[in-house]
Amino acid sequence: MQSYEQSLQQTRDFLLEHDDYLVVSHVQPDGDAVSSTLAVGWLLSCLGKKYCMLNEGPIPKRMEYLWHADQILNMTLAGPDREFKHVICVDCADFQRVGLTHRYFAADALIANIDHHPTNNGYGAVNLIKPDAAATAEILFDLLQLFALEWNTDIATAIYTGLLTDTGGFRYTNTSPKVMAAVSELLKLGVNGPELAETLLEEMTLAQVKVLNRALSTLQLSPEGDVAWVHVTPEDMIACGASNEDLEGIVNYPRNIQGVEVGILFKVIHPGAVKVSLRSAGKVDVAALAQTFGGGGHTRAAGAKIEAALEEVIPQVLEEVRRYL
Amino acid sequence: MQSYEQSLQQTRDFLLEHDDYLVVSHVQPDGDAVSSTLAVGWLLSCLGKKYCMLNEGPIPKRMEYLWHADQILNMTLAGPDREFKHVICVDCADFQRVGLTHRYFAADALIANIDHHPTNNGYGAVNLIKPDAAATAEILFDLLQLFALEWNTDIATAIYTGLLTDTGGFRYTNTSPKVMAAVSELLKLGVNGPELAETLLEEMTLAQVKVLNRALSTLQLSPEGDVAWVHVTPEDMIACGASNEDLEGIVNYPRNIQGVEVGILFKVIHPGAVKVSLRSAGKVDVAALAQTFGGGGHTRAAGAKIEAALEEVIPQVLEEVRRYL
Repeated sequence: MQSYEQSLQQTRDFLLEHDDYLVVSHVQPDGDAVSSTLAVGWLLSCLGKKYCMLNEGPIPKRMEYLWHADQILNMTLAGPDREFKHVICVDCADFQRVGLTHRYFAADALIANIDHHPTNNGYGAVNLIKPDAAATAEILFDLLQLFALEWNTDIATAIYTGLLTDTGGFRYTNTSPKVMAAVSELLKLGVNGPELAETLLEEMTLAQVKVLNRALSTLQLSPEGDVAWVHVTPEDMIACGASNEDLEGIVNYPRNIQGVEVGILFKVIHPGAVKVSLRSAGKVDVAALAQTFGGGGHTRAAGAKIEAALEEVIPQVLEEVRRYL
Repeated sequence: MQSYEQSLQQTRDFLLEHDDYLVVSHVQPDGDAVSSTLAVGWLLSCLGKKYCMLNEGPIPKRMEYLWHADQILNMTLAGPDREFKHVICVDCADFQRVGLTHRYFAADALIANIDHHPTNNGYGAVNLIKPDAAATAEILFDLLQLFALEWNTDIATAIYTGLLTDTGGFRYTNTSPKVMAAVSELLKLGVNGPELAETLLEEMTLAQVKVLNRALSTLQLSPEGDVAWVHVTPEDMIACGASNEDLEGIVNYPRNIQGVEVGILFKVIHPGAVKVSLRSAGKVDVAALAQTFGGGGHTRAAGAKIEAALEEVIPQVLEEVRRYL
């Protein structure tokens, strides 16, 4: 097993030795995926290398402010005109995560696999994996130090974006002293942290606010005040013009109420199926709870899909939650 | 005008030369006020000094986890049994901010005034004021460096709390590289950042969620989609069991909607008076706008009280907002 430092060196050599790289990330790219793609692109441009940045789909509109974000090709519109022999995959825990972009990998392509997911299975010819990094952007922060580059606000903003989004605005447990020290350096380079937080973390769609309002109207609490839940129906979704993405974060409202240990969102998929999202304040392992319904997740955030009507699902889940409290 | 370094030295000497200090902060203490009080208390305890921590009222329940938070006397319950000749005021922009605690200041008391508000008028015998510090806790972080102390998780958590709350979770423009470098050091000392963010920034009262729901039910947008507003009535407040504190943050919901430049909360005080809270995404100077109604504030967050019925106030304010767009 080689050390992180050895992997960094090996990746540096990979970037120096070849030319004409394809840089890809995972399908439905998030802040870290986009940032990491651009950070590698910025590095390659500094090295005077030819490269092409690609994703299976579009990048989120709210990330368009990033340096060269418009140069990440969207495969559904127009892919590259050829295959590539050297590919850099960022933030992809396994090969399937690159989606259809693999069509542009040559059969004998050499892959550099740069990622922070603990489950990464090392599918690259070069593997730069740091499971305790908060974001792939953190690994790129380290990698870029190996080159004598003059950092500017563009690259600093890209790295900052990855760190900000993957730590939930510096609030998740992966927010290490190292992340904050890096953030301090990035701010010195002129990153507009408050603006990024606003754009990436606080902005909501109108549909999101509307569906939040509908969900909160259904808020209920257990007599003990330790379980709170809301539900959303297909009718709500249609009335609000909401997509599944707009439901993100809603489950935190019941969870964030003082005294609540478990917060739940019941999302009716159709009359006979409900998606249950569970959030724990710490006492209850909701991953285990979700497993009893054939679902899974993390100890404090988990979910399951239950094939039954809402009126059956709610008491069933509440009874199980009660057993865990 | 003495330098910040000179003020730090002078404050250090003030703390070393005397004994039996009274440590106070401002009325209705926030995270920075409580943290700064405790940080001074921690320092004095390390120096083997006698001291008494005091506030005009209670400290917020959600800060009770802090080291010795229960030792800050609440004047409304029981004040100290005597007057003090040496007083340390933290986070108080002017003398009035200490509230009724001044009753325990001896007539000839020497005051050390430690604060970060730009408007601080230097009312102390010793004045340690840094207007560009994000929080008074940041100044205490510097002050404590002058003493050869072994920092522990208690003091680190206190300082972190002040930085976290006064920067709105590291999202306001005062979130400097220095703040983030300090945060990095504090995390190394074992501060549980995620838990603090949850307790201090994310937790909501049930009344808060209920009144948010009521407010969102009134959401309206201008035809251009650039102004969004909600209102809250006294009936809403009663039905939800909500206090004014529970309204905090509601105005951000209309403001955070994509495309919105100005978000407004109209709070009906009584049938003939409305409190108007204005938030700007950046384009409109809402402080100037609020001034036209006899109010004031900052460029992106301001407010005014208008003596008229809600039905008159809304179109009046919207018309004025339109002139600014």
